[in-house]
Amino acid sequence: MERPKDERRWKVIRSEYLHRKPWLTVRQECVELPNGNRIPEYYVLEYPDWVNILALTRDKQFVLVRQYRHAYGHTDYELCAGVCDPEDSSPLEAAQRELREETGYGNGVWQEFMTISANTSTHTNLTHCFLATDVEPVVARHLEATEDLSVHLFSLEQLKDLLKQDLIKQSLMAAPLWKYMAENHLF
Amino acid sequence: MERPKDERRWKVIRSEYLHRKPWLTVRQECVELPNGNRIPEYYVLEYPDWVNILALTRDKQFVLVRQYRHAYGHTDYELCAGVCDPEDSSPLEAAQRELREETGYGNGVWQEFMTISANTSTHTNLTHCFLATDVEPVVARHLEATEDLSVHLFSLEQLKDLLKQDLIKQSLMAAPLWKYMAENHLF
Repeated sequence: MERPKDERRWKVIRSEYLHRKPWLTVRQECVELPNGNRIPEYYVLEYPDWVNILALTRDKQFVLVRQYRHAYGHTDYELCAGVCDPEDSSPLEAAQRELREETGYGNGVWQEFMTISANTSTHTNLTHCFLATDVEPVVARHLEATEDLSVHLFSLEQLKDLLKQDLIKQSLMAAPLWKYMAENHLF
Repeated sequence: MERPKDERRWKVIRSEYLHRKPWLTVRQECVELPNGNRIPEYYVLEYPDWVNILALTRDKQFVLVRQYRHAYGHTDYELCAGVCDPEDSSPLEAAQRELREETGYGNGVWQEFMTISANTSTHTNLTHCFLATDVEPVVARHLEATEDLSVHLFSLEQLKDLLKQDLIKQSLMAAPLWKYMAENHLF
């Protein structure tokens, strides 16, 4: 979406990279607000765009993964998700590749469902959330050595139980799941 | 919520702070997965818990703020949000303080609505989302020098337009807003 020039945009007075590695790139900036006040140490986390997939099989089962998340320190049910690689020609291609690799599911009908940020104040990237219906098992799963996750099919009632119990902790996944419930009048 | 011991928990082989400042604290860790594979450089972002508030006035207007977000580079409508300070006795107290300071609204009926994470793989903290109904103007706004935001009252239809146009970019706010729509059958 094209946006008009932003009258509230902050002026960057100074910018330097604190750290520049594949999994953590941080800029430290001195910025000036429109009111003239300065923030001398503002941190910007640079990431490539991410994707996640609300995937449903032909018989209306939701394809979830279960995965340990180290920073939070818990194992939870989640949507399949991943990072847009340089080789992916589009977020859609990245999402289709991630669903295939992590869960073995593919085909089906795909639509971009919403585009959100983990935190617009600190993250440069967006997460493209896709809705994929009528997916089916197409290949064997192909996990990377550092991926340790299991695949689970959930009925609508089981998924609603997870939501009611506040067990979907990833906001990037809770948002599309609740949007799906709202738009389809499932709650 | 008490959780059982996690059989998928990763072992921390080495951990050191890369950076330790009020607005950015990062640990670099070498971790070992249950399958024996190691990730030599895993980054954990430590933050205090955050809060946000889905606030409604007595005449069913939604209290939103409009704010520039530097990392993403755009100004958007958002829920009022903030950080739990050490002086706040609870997330509820932090949320009530933030709503008062940023918008001037207070009183009303409060409930914890959901608890989510910006990203459980990188963030240690949770965001406590509150639903506050029947709020009313109680004090003059009191912004910090580095806060530059305006307050806006939105009708349900105006808020639904924002959601339909995919203009709520903060996933930590999109999730409670869509949950509210789903539970109250407003879409």
